[in-house]
Amino acid sequence: MKFSVKMIDIANKGALLHTADARKIRVRDGDRVQIINEEAGKNAQAHVDTTGSLIEQGTIGIYRPLNPFLGVNEGEEVEVRCADRPRSLTHIRKKMDGGRLAKDEMLQVTRDIVDETLAPGEVTAFITASYINGLDMDETEYLTRAMVETGDSLQFGTRPIVDKHSIGGVPGNKISLLIVPIIAASGLKIPKTSSRAITGAGGTADLMEVVAPVAFPASEVQRMTEKVGGVIVWGGATNIAPADDRIITYEYPLKIDARGQMLASVMAKKMAVGANLVVIDIPVGRYTKVADVQEGRKMAREFMELGERLNMRVECALSYGESLVGHTIGPILEVQEALAVLEGKREPHSLIQKSLSLAGIALEMAGKAGPGQGFAVAEDLLRSGKALEKFRQIIEIQGGDPGVTADSLTPGEHQFVVRAPQDGYVIELHNRSLITIARTLGSPQDAGAGVVVHSKKGSRVRQGDPILTFYADRAWRLQSAIEAARTLMPVVVEGMILERLPSERWI
Amino acid sequence: MKFSVKMIDIANKGALLHTADARKIRVRDGDRVQIINEEAGKNAQAHVDTTGSLIEQGTIGIYRPLNPFLGVNEGEEVEVRCADRPRSLTHIRKKMDGGRLAKDEMLQVTRDIVDETLAPGEVTAFITASYINGLDMDETEYLTRAMVETGDSLQFGTRPIVDKHSIGGVPGNKISLLIVPIIAASGLKIPKTSSRAITGAGGTADLMEVVAPVAFPASEVQRMTEKVGGVIVWGGATNIAPADDRIITYEYPLKIDARGQMLASVMAKKMAVGANLVVIDIPVGRYTKVADVQEGRKMAREFMELGERLNMRVECALSYGESLVGHTIGPILEVQEALAVLEGKREPHSLIQKSLSLAGIALEMAGKAGPGQGFAVAEDLLRSGKALEKFRQIIEIQGGDPGVTADSLTPGEHQFVVRAPQDGYVIELHNRSLITIARTLGSPQDAGAGVVVHSKKGSRVRQGDPILTFYADRAWRLQSAIEAARTLMPVVVEGMILERLPSERWI
Repeated sequence: MKFSVKMIDIANKGALLHTADARKIRVRDGDRVQIINEEAGKNAQAHVDTTGSLIEQGTIGIYRPLNPFLGVNEGEEVEVRCADRPRSLTHIRKKMDGGRLAKDEMLQVTRDIVDETLAPGEVTAFITASYINGLDMDETEYLTRAMVETGDSLQFGTRPIVDKHSIGGVPGNKISLLIVPIIAASGLKIPKTSSRAITGAGGTADLMEVVAPVAFPASEVQRMTEKVGGVIVWGGATNIAPADDRIITYEYPLKIDARGQMLASVMAKKMAVGANLVVIDIPVGRYTKVADVQEGRKMAREFMELGERLNMRVECALSYGESLVGHTIGPILEVQEALAVLEGKREPHSLIQKSLSLAGIALEMAGKAGPGQGFAVAEDLLRSGKALEKFRQIIEIQGGDPGVTADSLTPGEHQFVVRAPQDGYVIELHNRSLITIARTLGSPQDAGAGVVVHSKKGSRVRQGDPILTFYADRAWRLQSAIEAARTLMPVVVEGMILERLPSERWI
Repeated sequence: MKFSVKMIDIANKGALLHTADARKIRVRDGDRVQIINEEAGKNAQAHVDTTGSLIEQGTIGIYRPLNPFLGVNEGEEVEVRCADRPRSLTHIRKKMDGGRLAKDEMLQVTRDIVDETLAPGEVTAFITASYINGLDMDETEYLTRAMVETGDSLQFGTRPIVDKHSIGGVPGNKISLLIVPIIAASGLKIPKTSSRAITGAGGTADLMEVVAPVAFPASEVQRMTEKVGGVIVWGGATNIAPADDRIITYEYPLKIDARGQMLASVMAKKMAVGANLVVIDIPVGRYTKVADVQEGRKMAREFMELGERLNMRVECALSYGESLVGHTIGPILEVQEALAVLEGKREPHSLIQKSLSLAGIALEMAGKAGPGQGFAVAEDLLRSGKALEKFRQIIEIQGGDPGVTADSLTPGEHQFVVRAPQDGYVIELHNRSLITIARTLGSPQDAGAGVVVHSKKGSRVRQGDPILTFYADRAWRLQSAIEAARTLMPVVVEGMILERLPSERWI
């Protein structure tokens, strides 16, 4: 049936039909239609909303993100019909029935996820089936390659290209802000794409955005890396392995973290930027994604096997994940902490140790340091100021102010100090609670919001000593976080739980 | 954050926010928000669409189906925030991990499906996990009860209440049009709710709609049944076990038919109408949902066990499902065929045999016929004209014209006859192809559209004999169906495939 186009400014890949028209072409609210722009030889599938009054009969409302697929203008004519069932549903059904997907089947499913031919429920069915029935190493390889193929890729003329990835789960993990400049300062190339916070209080992209723009297309990422050796950008803006972004969206509410998909997600991002030397940081600890060392070793072996199949050399480091890295959580606070280290500060130990160890592994893999010498070479690049200089070049090429210093950054003006209610030891410091408090304070949207941890687990404290400081850009958020902290009990001093104290004493 | 309400006529349970506001309350397109109408003490969750221009900042667009949960008016104020994760996601995740859901967990999931707290992807995750990991009999019972509890129920003062259900998969299965009047004519009560076509060419509700309205609330279904003993209404209008309707919507694209869910769906509808005597028709055959007799027996046992747990007596009949029931497919054609039988016609044999057998089982269960006498009692109710009289009462109470006769109904005016290309036997008659052709002809939306099968499988035909007649209300649909038939090859005569013949000869 022919319809006249009306543009509608709603931000999903959908379309709007009059209820009577929907009945005519036999679709119901939420069903898929096929829309054909015969003039331009373009067509697309979209889910359909229905209305009795917003548009007239004979008209189809095209939502904004749908039009790039169709290229129509207001008032033009399109053919609309009930869409065929996508073939990838057959493959998803096969996975549900315990089957193993072939290379072309995995590619079809991935493609239909990327162009949103599959409805959210159908993507979830794929993720759920992959989670329950598992993906074997062949399928994981196919999924990785499919994720790369269905997005943009970087093509560097030289080798090696280095990359690093942290599996996540540890708060305050600002190590990329040190590792990327160190690697690039050694003369290697490291085009680092990173994520924004999903469950945490700040992804690396949120941190970098404090000092420079982070949204670039893939071609710019390549050009900047070729020029200064490294970048720290937001992967979500690049169209590199876009299937991954969609899959993560659907996994998030269900807290699924299917092994095969996780391996594919990480390695697809690395493969697509052209990396052939990859260091994977696997934090191990009770609140991370990997509970113990054995589990960590198994994951490391899987990463290495997948890397081999994709012609990438992968090394993994199991890291201590029970406590936050450094002392800060929240964009400005974390950038300040990292910048201070680049500027010469010898603390915090946990941040410096972890960053130099991982950078050292990459330097050894690339031949920039002899066996066992990586840490020392990385330390030298840091101490000599070369890493700081490189970080300034990276900030500048991404469009930030290279003159930024740790002191020039100011965290949120609204502050609150949590003090020790008595002499004793900090026997518990809950990572999850700290993250929740940081988010309540406004992190990462409010860049100045966050938490400084003065006394980490095991520290001796005296009554009245500061244990945590909360920072917020807005006063009401500080109040919300103080309320939340009473319930969350982020700190326990010698078995005395803060929340049980009379609140006058605690504040 | 406070928002001013604007009503928007879009037919799903969503809301629309300005992109800037969405960012402020930290939701993205597709995320869930909690909307609170403090004045009325009402609140609801909804998924959110975003726009840069359709509404102003500080305003929330409330889509039509959402407002019954909120009860707000244009311009009033509501509180909107990022919604908490529904607790039922934890239960769904448990099912994904192979766990078994407890009674209250199943109820929570079902409730969140019904009020659309769960997003489509999350419902699919539940369905997929239940399909892959299976539901045991306890879980199936819990799901059945949850489906009943989360919808309306009928409460009859007397017993027994009879009901019947066909598992489906056989075209032309118009038996309810005979069974319901026969049962009701015996003095029993049978409040039959039925479905519209999903994959088929006409559900019982589509057929009944030819002669009377079928959309009634549960209270009306009860009142009419009390008055004349039976009704044939559309279940989708009643709010009886509404969870089932939603689950089916999500199962359809993936062609999932999870056993536990199917059992629960069927039995929840029966339990909710108050039925305590239930006859289940399980068609067995290559293109039905049950491939062989062994599989059918297993399903029958499961129905009976579930019935026992719910205090309902269930009997099952495995029926021949390889060929269509009677000779017609399509609303008017099927009603005509059934009415003719009620009016005294002794054909078609397959329709009469099946209807009387199933009605007979119910009559025996209810004590209206002695053991082995059900068929004869049912036949007597049919032959005596009592069933016809009862059917007219049912038509009248539902608001139709009780004077309707088989001859007064006219199928589509555009017709096409498929004739035997040579002497031989009809060795193949493809049910699936017949259904596709009937749908292409316009069935069930165009009530006059459909197919009459003159020569069923095994019939001897002479060259030029009519095998099929296509009926359509619109000429272009007839043409489409003729085109489709060339590809679908619905009939094979003596091994000669129609499509391979020169097409001049075929037409």
